[in-house]
Amino acid sequence: MNIHLICTGTELLIGHTLNTNQQFIGDCLDRAGYRLATERCIPDTGEAIAAAVREELARADLVITVGGLGPTTDDLTRDAVARELGARLKYDPEVHAVITAYLAGRNVPVPAESLRVQAMVPEGATALPNRNGTAPGLWCPAPGGKFVVLLPGPPRELQPMFRDQVLPRLRELAPPEVVRLSFAVCGRPESAVAEVVEHELATFPGIEPAYCAHPAQVEVRLSAAPAFRERLELARARLTECLGDDVLPAGCTDPAQAVATMLLERRLWLATAESCTGGGIAKTVTDLPGASAWFCGGVVAYSNDWKECLLDVPDHLLTDHGAVSAETAGAMLDALFRRYEADAGIAVTGIAGPAGGTPDKPVGLVYIATGLRTRQQVTRHLFPGNRDSVRQRTITTALNQLRLQLLQNA
Amino acid sequence: MNIHLICTGTELLIGHTLNTNQQFIGDCLDRAGYRLATERCIPDTGEAIAAAVREELARADLVITVGGLGPTTDDLTRDAVARELGARLKYDPEVHAVITAYLAGRNVPVPAESLRVQAMVPEGATALPNRNGTAPGLWCPAPGGKFVVLLPGPPRELQPMFRDQVLPRLRELAPPEVVRLSFAVCGRPESAVAEVVEHELATFPGIEPAYCAHPAQVEVRLSAAPAFRERLELARARLTECLGDDVLPAGCTDPAQAVATMLLERRLWLATAESCTGGGIAKTVTDLPGASAWFCGGVVAYSNDWKECLLDVPDHLLTDHGAVSAETAGAMLDALFRRYEADAGIAVTGIAGPAGGTPDKPVGLVYIATGLRTRQQVTRHLFPGNRDSVRQRTITTALNQLRLQLLQNA
Repeated sequence: MNIHLICTGTELLIGHTLNTNQQFIGDCLDRAGYRLATERCIPDTGEAIAAAVREELARADLVITVGGLGPTTDDLTRDAVARELGARLKYDPEVHAVITAYLAGRNVPVPAESLRVQAMVPEGATALPNRNGTAPGLWCPAPGGKFVVLLPGPPRELQPMFRDQVLPRLRELAPPEVVRLSFAVCGRPESAVAEVVEHELATFPGIEPAYCAHPAQVEVRLSAAPAFRERLELARARLTECLGDDVLPAGCTDPAQAVATMLLERRLWLATAESCTGGGIAKTVTDLPGASAWFCGGVVAYSNDWKECLLDVPDHLLTDHGAVSAETAGAMLDALFRRYEADAGIAVTGIAGPAGGTPDKPVGLVYIATGLRTRQQVTRHLFPGNRDSVRQRTITTALNQLRLQLLQNA
Repeated sequence: MNIHLICTGTELLIGHTLNTNQQFIGDCLDRAGYRLATERCIPDTGEAIAAAVREELARADLVITVGGLGPTTDDLTRDAVARELGARLKYDPEVHAVITAYLAGRNVPVPAESLRVQAMVPEGATALPNRNGTAPGLWCPAPGGKFVVLLPGPPRELQPMFRDQVLPRLRELAPPEVVRLSFAVCGRPESAVAEVVEHELATFPGIEPAYCAHPAQVEVRLSAAPAFRERLELARARLTECLGDDVLPAGCTDPAQAVATMLLERRLWLATAESCTGGGIAKTVTDLPGASAWFCGGVVAYSNDWKECLLDVPDHLLTDHGAVSAETAGAMLDALFRRYEADAGIAVTGIAGPAGGTPDKPVGLVYIATGLRTRQQVTRHLFPGNRDSVRQRTITTALNQLRLQLLQNA
């Protein structure tokens, strides 16, 4: 199944908008066992769209277009594709009714003519209802048993439509060429993860690994021919055994989610004390909806004054060991338990750069203290990269350190 | 000047990596007065690269490729393009010396053969030195007065090379077709900004506006033919006058940068008190290097307990008005001045969702208190969108509110 993607929109070409739709579709297809063969990004003129669809249709089995389905004058994909396929556009009263129902109660004034435009369907095509907007997607048959699928550009409209309506149709059309599964590993460098994976997979012929590295975290994707589905599961089980607690639970894409689940189950309250991450850990845990059930709060003690006043770090400790030290990190964590009555805590102090490094304490040096009332741990790290990289690695590593402690204290 | 971009890399097509290089190049070209006509994303096989270069070279004046210049077996762009152009690859000792100098003292073991591969230059081509990596870019003449430019994939290598070495060569080749300038507007919806811009530009024929909306912020880009350069400046001056303090200072892409400059100049210390943003404001200000010269710290008071204990919000106030109220926001801000001796403060409380909304206090309701010791302000907002959107709009709006107060108290 040769799948080509065409993204339309001048906003993409002039860099106003980052093309997250391409990543989303590529990732979804890959996880489902298909492969996006190629992608193009073109201006939203009728001629450019028609020419691109013609070219890609000559080489692909399925062409997906993104964008240009709205009601405005630069939304030309529907017309261009219908013309290219030689299909007449027909007004579809059922599609019109679905759009009207979506708009009911939403208090968005939409001119009647716009509604009508979006209810036009090329003859022979199937409209894909849009749960989060007005323009439906369109699944259009093309000569030679091929298909062109038209999807709306806004990600919140495209994503559920692709997952719930395009992928199932794709599976009916052709079974996946490969089966895949993935899991996330936290706390080992990519090369160390790869070493374990390659070694173990020697006894699982036909299972192919791939790695996607994030700061302080690696996603492992395994793939195999559909005949090896069972072997794929066995390989995952074996790798999970070898990598142990460094593997995040199924469905977790970062350690914060695993921490959240355990805190909620055990009715424990988390607090944070941050210096170099400047609120990044609190921000990350409160990105999760429902965090108010297990996160009480955090102190961002950027200055030494704040470390003393809010986190009771003794003046002599700052003088003797410095703000970036195991002692300071430990004292910051202590305060979360003693003064703020947290059940679980994370405290970090470090040098994110670009300035502030010394030969003794270079940029990237970070101390991370985490734990429960009964059991705490302080670790020292030298993270590579720029300010953003050091801060992001600190956030992920700190949350993972707490995750491991919660696991061990189960 | 017809510019086509080819991005190579299977990691892009399977969604491992978001294609930020395309956005960067499109944005840079647009700001410099050129236009990226089209982009393609292809797998990193020699055949795919050669075929894409051949096709695009037939329609473009300049083809830019990204990726595949490293030393490993899947880095095939150099070979494929040289073959396509009929140019022999020649070992260049000067390029080799530059790479060796880059590696000196970096303690990265690189096999001699890898170094040699990266020092191969197609005959007639110019190597573009890489300040942040080993593989140089390559500027290759092609038949018909055309050019193919090969750039490395890692953004930290590509970005300075594109800005400092590709753009100047492009300007020599052909003057920009348009001149552009841009400014950021904070605190007005896109439609309100557009209304002012369209109205004023009626008296500046030949100046075209474009808008790029971010949460609670809009970037306005103006463009014109090179002959109208002076008129473009006059139009900017007029618009800046009309939009007043809502325009961020030149060079600022978000209000945090403007706040930082004013705090540093006036030797004022900022502190933050956050509920619904969960540390996002502190994170945003500490994203800026050097924040320790003007940011003392922040309290993330997610629970009511923390609001009482750390921010002295009276129990009766929480009972009578609720945690999400103008009164609570004001009390949180107060504590920053009285208890933590800040000179400037930001306090926010709101309902980010998805849960927690009521008919009286729906999701999106946010109170923002900001100010200096002498002058404070509390505002009420009803932000649209999901949890991420509400939180991001709160962060930008709060920082902008403080920016305006600092401006007025200059």
